[in-house]
Amino acid sequence: MTTTKLEQELSQFKELLKKMKSYEEAVGLMYWDMRTGAPKKGIPARSEVVGVLSGELFKMSVSDEMGELLASLSEADKFSALGRTEQTMVTECRKDYDRSKKIPPQKYQEYVVLTSQAESVWEEAKHEADYAKFQPYLEKIVATNLEFIELWGYEGHKYNTLLDMYEPGMTVAKLDEVFGALREKVVPLLASIQASPHKPESGFLRQNFEKDKQKAFSLYILKQMGYDFEAGRLDETVHPFATGLNPGDVRITTRYLPDDVNSALFGTIHEGGHALYEQNISPELIGTPLCTGTSMGIHESQSRFWENMIGRSRPFWNRYYRDLQANYPGQFDRVAVEDFYRATNEVKPSLIRIEADELTYNLHIMVRYEIEKGLFSGAVSVADLPEVWNEKYKDYLGVVPSNNGEGVLQDVHWAGGAFGYFPSYALGNMYAAQMMRTIRKELPDFDGLIGAGNLLPIKDWLADKVYRYGKSLTPTEIITSVTGEELNPDYLVQYFEHKFGDIYKL
Amino acid sequence: MTTTKLEQELSQFKELLKKMKSYEEAVGLMYWDMRTGAPKKGIPARSEVVGVLSGELFKMSVSDEMGELLASLSEADKFSALGRTEQTMVTECRKDYDRSKKIPPQKYQEYVVLTSQAESVWEEAKHEADYAKFQPYLEKIVATNLEFIELWGYEGHKYNTLLDMYEPGMTVAKLDEVFGALREKVVPLLASIQASPHKPESGFLRQNFEKDKQKAFSLYILKQMGYDFEAGRLDETVHPFATGLNPGDVRITTRYLPDDVNSALFGTIHEGGHALYEQNISPELIGTPLCTGTSMGIHESQSRFWENMIGRSRPFWNRYYRDLQANYPGQFDRVAVEDFYRATNEVKPSLIRIEADELTYNLHIMVRYEIEKGLFSGAVSVADLPEVWNEKYKDYLGVVPSNNGEGVLQDVHWAGGAFGYFPSYALGNMYAAQMMRTIRKELPDFDGLIGAGNLLPIKDWLADKVYRYGKSLTPTEIITSVTGEELNPDYLVQYFEHKFGDIYKL
Repeated sequence: MTTTKLEQELSQFKELLKKMKSYEEAVGLMYWDMRTGAPKKGIPARSEVVGVLSGELFKMSVSDEMGELLASLSEADKFSALGRTEQTMVTECRKDYDRSKKIPPQKYQEYVVLTSQAESVWEEAKHEADYAKFQPYLEKIVATNLEFIELWGYEGHKYNTLLDMYEPGMTVAKLDEVFGALREKVVPLLASIQASPHKPESGFLRQNFEKDKQKAFSLYILKQMGYDFEAGRLDETVHPFATGLNPGDVRITTRYLPDDVNSALFGTIHEGGHALYEQNISPELIGTPLCTGTSMGIHESQSRFWENMIGRSRPFWNRYYRDLQANYPGQFDRVAVEDFYRATNEVKPSLIRIEADELTYNLHIMVRYEIEKGLFSGAVSVADLPEVWNEKYKDYLGVVPSNNGEGVLQDVHWAGGAFGYFPSYALGNMYAAQMMRTIRKELPDFDGLIGAGNLLPIKDWLADKVYRYGKSLTPTEIITSVTGEELNPDYLVQYFEHKFGDIYKL
Repeated sequence: MTTTKLEQELSQFKELLKKMKSYEEAVGLMYWDMRTGAPKKGIPARSEVVGVLSGELFKMSVSDEMGELLASLSEADKFSALGRTEQTMVTECRKDYDRSKKIPPQKYQEYVVLTSQAESVWEEAKHEADYAKFQPYLEKIVATNLEFIELWGYEGHKYNTLLDMYEPGMTVAKLDEVFGALREKVVPLLASIQASPHKPESGFLRQNFEKDKQKAFSLYILKQMGYDFEAGRLDETVHPFATGLNPGDVRITTRYLPDDVNSALFGTIHEGGHALYEQNISPELIGTPLCTGTSMGIHESQSRFWENMIGRSRPFWNRYYRDLQANYPGQFDRVAVEDFYRATNEVKPSLIRIEADELTYNLHIMVRYEIEKGLFSGAVSVADLPEVWNEKYKDYLGVVPSNNGEGVLQDVHWAGGAFGYFPSYALGNMYAAQMMRTIRKELPDFDGLIGAGNLLPIKDWLADKVYRYGKSLTPTEIITSVTGEELNPDYLVQYFEHKFGDIYKL
């Protein structure tokens, strides 16, 4: 049997992708190491190593070899002879290749330097609450992104091109629709909650909790979720994250606050949700660019699902509260499970996104979305950002920052040029609620499973419906195949109304 | 000012070396990770990543670019215009390049597969004490090495070519001389020790010692040695090692035996000695192939110096025994410091190299050296190895293995094709004793410094004389510049006679 030209090219293509994935995995491990336990004096040299390997990876992604293989495999007769997964690999790589090739290398290199400097400047500016210091950098970053958008091309709104990088297929039109619908319900719901006389008492969440005990309980819950410790590990960092190096090595990190019983726990469950996704990707996708979550939004749906819809649910605490009490002897003797559940779900508008509760979190995202949209339509200028920020916070959340450090400067995303990323967080909440509606139909005793501490059937269901596909299905294909319809914000609204209506006796 | 052709080539050469060093560092981190905490299900994919990056590294080392740069920079007029360090870089790379280029790629690939299989087979064979199972693999490995030696060329003894890979410049003639001199004195010394009625009691070294306490004491001693924890870390592994990823990141590992107070401690000091070397290489060598120890023998001299000449010295225990007693409350109340010191230096011929005492260790090495020499001169056949091994053990150490598992199959080295490596261990002991003789002259209160727990001047002396040069001086240049003469086994003999004559009251 002779090998056809197609087979040869396909094999060469897969070899190249596997090589690129190898570099990604090596770089991923170096990042994990730098953030967990790498000795600080080794960091400068290590950063250069990361730079060298990332540079080589980029070169491969825009190499003539890649270009020729993609051109050839995209020819109609060859493409149609490929399997479904192989087609997606070609399409995905072609998208990255075209995007990278359209930027002049010199321009791209300048942008990398710019964002790297901007991140340092942002750190100082945030610390000093000095927006003027950061403003010229942000202006350049926005201007460069506008140039890139012109080179990349766009349909409809310029911002669509950026959104598509994090959530393939997402548009301003769609986000305006779903965020509009969400806001329309969330804002009055928040008002009712604030007016309710039935507010939870939450002081007991703030006591002194030994780190070892916090860690032991976090590990226990991870195990309950079906996180595979033979394919991962839990470490400590300043900023928690999950990193899927390969499906057999998906690591998570958390941060222990000495006076907060929930912070590390829910942080761990959140990252654990991301990790379950990456641990359960089908082995046949290993070594391909499809061996990762399909989008930031779908990824976030899994972390949020486990964190909020399971971890902050009443049946969860009906089952696990006794274990938490036993873990902290004497510290929760006088706290009833219902009081703990309500405290854990306290809603309170605040200034800082990452500390926000489940409900108001979405409003923090909408503020950023409106601003980003305005920056790329020209409706908002970088100079006006602090003012716009403060107005929108007052409008959406009813709170106003006392300075720009806790206002417009609070997030690192813009310093790194990550415009279009923020919406993923709220999309994740919507996807999660929509999936929960389906899972409740297909596993009718959903609450009973949680209440019995039987979480594995839930993990298995998600693995079967979502995780195993990795990036071989688009976000829209995933949400449609799982729930039977496209993204619909109503399920999140219904979930909120039901949950908080109950907690606040509305 | 125009850039000359030489400057251009030199800059391109350094760029290529820095790139190669980056790959080495990434691979080094992946190895460290696999041996310390990597989740086991991720290992197969990680091994492939290591394979891909190592393959790329090898390709660079034999690339046309490397060949052309080396050829050009080796031209007499250009070479003479280079600085001393640059010349060494060219010479070192040329040596590796020539060696690699002389082996047909197909042959080399087959050898990699052969040794990889042989290591698995060896593990089983050792476990089952079944030499016949391993013999055909070892025959092929020796035969292939003989073919390689023909391709590489050799001067005098064929084995010289292998020795040179681990200890540049070392020869059979030199080893015969120094090992002969050493054996001539060590064997009768051992006989006197065995005949001495003054044997130390050592039962108290075997009690139950909590792992956390062992770790705390190991960390304390490392700190005393001047190991920089901002440029390293201590982890746990089955087989302890040190790995210098860059001078700012030199990690060590150890193994805690629950019933042995010394094993982890001396293992840590040993690896700490290796690490001090790597941590103190001059920063200007970072990113070059000279940023590592100059040879296996000189590297081992530093681990042995710290482990034996300092860690197993009387002044060391006069200072640190009280800390050890405090670390294990109640466990050494009735043991006098002198008894602890003597127990820690007990000499007892045994079958297993890695468990041998300081004195007899060298005899284990000589057995292996004699066998390797015979294999490559044709005087010994692979089929005869078990018999030869047992005879030599009887002859050198007076003990005979009861089976091949604790005999000829005990070490992994030959399965991996590492012929020529073993002598480094004994060379390290000789270099170390020779350096100690010099340090005692230059720091006249050497014992007093140790006795006062003032180890840093010793570390600084070694850093200044040895460590900072990395591989920019040859082993012979190092030992000559430090001690004023070439390798001389007499100093190790004198050290042994003095130390054990005292302990055993000879």
